[in-house]
Amino acid sequence: MTSFNLNIPRSFPNSRKIYCEGSQKTIRVPMREVQQSPTQEQQGSEPNPPITLYDTSGPYTDPAVTIDIQKGLAPIRNPWVLERKAKGGNTVTQMHYAKKGIITPEMEYVAIRENRRLEMIQDGILCQSHKGESFGIHIPKIITPEFVRQEVAKGRAIIPSNVNHLELEPMIIGRHFLVKVNANLGNSAVTSSISEEVEKMLWAIRWGADTVMDLSTGKQIHETREWIIRNSPVPVGTVPIYQALEKIEGKAEELSWPIYRDTLIEQAEQGVDYFTIHAGVLLRYIPLTANRLTGIVSRGGSIMAKWCLTHHKESFLYTHFEEICEIMKAYDVSFSLGDGLRPGSIADANDEAQFAELRTLGELTQIAWKHEVQVMIEGPGHIPVHLIKENMDKELKECSEAPFYTLGPLTTDIAPGYDHITSSIGATMIGWYGCALLCYVTPKEHLGLPNKEDVKDGIIAYKIAAHAADLAKGHPAAQVRDNALSKARFEFRWKDQFNLSLDPERASLFHDETLPKEAAKWAHFCSMCGPKFCSMQITQEVREYAKREGIANEEQAIQKGLEDKSREFKAHHKDRI
Amino acid sequence: MTSFNLNIPRSFPNSRKIYCEGSQKTIRVPMREVQQSPTQEQQGSEPNPPITLYDTSGPYTDPAVTIDIQKGLAPIRNPWVLERKAKGGNTVTQMHYAKKGIITPEMEYVAIRENRRLEMIQDGILCQSHKGESFGIHIPKIITPEFVRQEVAKGRAIIPSNVNHLELEPMIIGRHFLVKVNANLGNSAVTSSISEEVEKMLWAIRWGADTVMDLSTGKQIHETREWIIRNSPVPVGTVPIYQALEKIEGKAEELSWPIYRDTLIEQAEQGVDYFTIHAGVLLRYIPLTANRLTGIVSRGGSIMAKWCLTHHKESFLYTHFEEICEIMKAYDVSFSLGDGLRPGSIADANDEAQFAELRTLGELTQIAWKHEVQVMIEGPGHIPVHLIKENMDKELKECSEAPFYTLGPLTTDIAPGYDHITSSIGATMIGWYGCALLCYVTPKEHLGLPNKEDVKDGIIAYKIAAHAADLAKGHPAAQVRDNALSKARFEFRWKDQFNLSLDPERASLFHDETLPKEAAKWAHFCSMCGPKFCSMQITQEVREYAKREGIANEEQAIQKGLEDKSREFKAHHKDRI
Repeated sequence: MTSFNLNIPRSFPNSRKIYCEGSQKTIRVPMREVQQSPTQEQQGSEPNPPITLYDTSGPYTDPAVTIDIQKGLAPIRNPWVLERKAKGGNTVTQMHYAKKGIITPEMEYVAIRENRRLEMIQDGILCQSHKGESFGIHIPKIITPEFVRQEVAKGRAIIPSNVNHLELEPMIIGRHFLVKVNANLGNSAVTSSISEEVEKMLWAIRWGADTVMDLSTGKQIHETREWIIRNSPVPVGTVPIYQALEKIEGKAEELSWPIYRDTLIEQAEQGVDYFTIHAGVLLRYIPLTANRLTGIVSRGGSIMAKWCLTHHKESFLYTHFEEICEIMKAYDVSFSLGDGLRPGSIADANDEAQFAELRTLGELTQIAWKHEVQVMIEGPGHIPVHLIKENMDKELKECSEAPFYTLGPLTTDIAPGYDHITSSIGATMIGWYGCALLCYVTPKEHLGLPNKEDVKDGIIAYKIAAHAADLAKGHPAAQVRDNALSKARFEFRWKDQFNLSLDPERASLFHDETLPKEAAKWAHFCSMCGPKFCSMQITQEVREYAKREGIANEEQAIQKGLEDKSREFKAHHKDRI
Repeated sequence: MTSFNLNIPRSFPNSRKIYCEGSQKTIRVPMREVQQSPTQEQQGSEPNPPITLYDTSGPYTDPAVTIDIQKGLAPIRNPWVLERKAKGGNTVTQMHYAKKGIITPEMEYVAIRENRRLEMIQDGILCQSHKGESFGIHIPKIITPEFVRQEVAKGRAIIPSNVNHLELEPMIIGRHFLVKVNANLGNSAVTSSISEEVEKMLWAIRWGADTVMDLSTGKQIHETREWIIRNSPVPVGTVPIYQALEKIEGKAEELSWPIYRDTLIEQAEQGVDYFTIHAGVLLRYIPLTANRLTGIVSRGGSIMAKWCLTHHKESFLYTHFEEICEIMKAYDVSFSLGDGLRPGSIADANDEAQFAELRTLGELTQIAWKHEVQVMIEGPGHIPVHLIKENMDKELKECSEAPFYTLGPLTTDIAPGYDHITSSIGATMIGWYGCALLCYVTPKEHLGLPNKEDVKDGIIAYKIAAHAADLAKGHPAAQVRDNALSKARFEFRWKDQFNLSLDPERASLFHDETLPKEAAKWAHFCSMCGPKFCSMQITQEVREYAKREGIANEEQAIQKGLEDKSREFKAHHKDRI
């Protein structure tokens, strides 16, 4: 067996891992608690509450847990899955239980997770929040297990959780929950190794990836995946056609249902939580791409297109769809119905090929639901800003509100090297409109394979997109973190500002580039303006003044006669300005 | 006199500087022309047209021009300004001429510049473009000098062009034109030197800054500005209150109208093209900020707030506004009416303090226009996604459609170190809604002073935002560059793809990290998928097949009987798959 020497980050600055227990002792939902320093005021100091953050980093950031990559993580779901198995029945999907009215431990787990102990925060300022503007989305103030069950039963949300992925910390994907981020991993025939991919996975979840996809091609697909799943606390997705194609040495025309079926079973058995299946690439849609600027850009889509043309037959993914459902049902693997005909450029956005396939994905959703298999729908790609909403609206309509899972979309094609930015713009917007899962794009997109730094840059850009969308949707108390960080910033609590940010290391590093001394982290000014020009400092004086005088609004201010007060202010501040 | 040894980039890869002449020989509008390699097809090669790009980089990228930083750039506007001076009159503003029905050389210049020789491109695919979705914006297919004149006369666009900034290559700011990007420069009391700031300016315009602001504080304000203006082909803006404050050693309460007035004249005389003036911070608005999470975060705003409170008087910027107009009118300095009360956090977005000030800026706009002084309006700041549009709508209404110039807005507060991304999301959206000028934010925002790399990262993020907004607005042929780059990508013309991108260096570097050999730049695959899995390659085969068989749409495909053809395809591709 391969032996690894991995660089595993075990903590976040000034944070601790906490667990919230559910109705049974085996339900222990991990969160990250960031400690804050007190606010220094003239009359003494005022404590600031710890802030609880949603935590995707798994047991790796719990110093109490011994990590052994060779052994894999502890199988925390074992008792839940065993108990259900004991009750029998062929269907073991979360959707099946949800429809029967049963709240599974996974459902309770994600409900606790989404709420993030917000009840702990008493401070009025931190809880202050804008009303969201959502598009038919109404998120309850408190996410209950029963609400989770209802959403899963309706197919509006999924909990990807293969019964053989026992190491999983369950999470939910649906537009009435926090927007989630997927990170793609995977070696290619050209480069990269297993240990690199495992390390990238650990790296990805550290920075906030909610799910990962293993897109490996090449010789060691099975082994790479095994290492990833056994060590992954987040759902793992794959595109099984890649491995099927490896088995026949890349000859697309030799693909067949038996080879594909065996691959599905092999991967389901390992514990893959969701499969991307491009079952909507129909023979008659392929010519619709002929006049496109960039044709078919999905790997899976182009493989299936080639197969269909070569054999002049409808894709076996489509003709054997019910059998695929049978396999997935037995393991609770979720569908990620692939968009093989997604546009590969702004020019090709929202065209007939794309929307024809989407309609077929809608039909397949109904079939999957008949089997009580969970479904999400994959979406574009490259879409200009003003055509993004149409994608979300059409998806909800054609696919009966199954969760949408999009790649970006990139909002322009002119910035290779920066497509994490071109696409985080589109991702924010589609997240706001209702997209549930955002597939990250790294700066290397279109150019090369992402290294660790690229993976991180991609994830951070997408955590920004997901969070900006949560704010816009008005997810209850999404704004707590913004408010806590802003308060820390305003009060010159530099370290709290760093620790509450998405990337404490970089924030601290950037600050130190200009003002490296430790003392500067306690300074009541920063390098942008220097001590004399600091607007925050001036504002605090203004605010203290207004507070002292009890001036809270315009009318009062006028009534109180500011003129008298100005003299006092002048006298008081003479030596300080 | 200071002697510089600057690193001045003199070219872009495979590009040449071209000039388009106007109605007189002195009107020579610079553009960048990117050469492309031909498309290789089985039957030979097909040429690809050169792509003309809007070029902000000035004479520095014209190898025919000798650069001497000590002397400054050639005073290209000299004949235009002299001719107008000869005709007499106190008012020399572009708005004045526009209202009189006169098309100035500056107006003709920007009209040619906005059109970018698009008539040169004959290729149908490259010109193919989505219809924009704009919010009351209707951009003509060809920008004429007369259209420019009308927009300037109505106050809907400005051409910042101080009569003493003769080195300027004129540009226009208005929502019926391309969205523009501003980059902030400037040393602070804490760090950085003049040569660094000049180098940053050259760096900024290389990457696409349409305007720069010199926000220097400290001892060498006047000299730094002189160096920047004499070498800047783009409009230069300042915040005069910073220098005024230096003159009285930072004691805000000692600010006075005479000191400020002298500073305005000094800077106008030097050739500053626009002044940020926080004349809307009224005494009665200040208490409205008392209950904010982050108070007043604008430097200028907080200085004026302090002055107002100390003296209990209305701001001298407000009480002397007509005199300010008189000065600015004499040089054609444009107003950038500052938003001193902009929100500094998501929590404070769209509050009463912010909108009260905006109403006052609207009143001041009317006064400035009475003097025929050009005006733009500054905007936030920190705004969640769903509250952005209200900002644009209110600005257009309150300020009679004067161009909006916003800082970001940042769409979340949780990512210090990445605020170029949090804010490029907001910038794209507000650009789409009608914002004319986007003030960049660098990754160092809130943390430290940007270095060269930060300046570049900020500008690229904002060029993306501006361009994504142009696409969404449906600016005529904004999509040409996207289409050309996508076509190059699809045809594996790697170098053309790099050269057409916003950052050819990075694109090329990223590609080489995985496949460094020169031969790989001609390869018909890339490192993401390797040779076997390349979807682009497969698509081309599909496309050639469809083309060969004359299958252009679904119905034809069915009629032709794909089954027969599949055999041929199979035979033909046997050895290639």
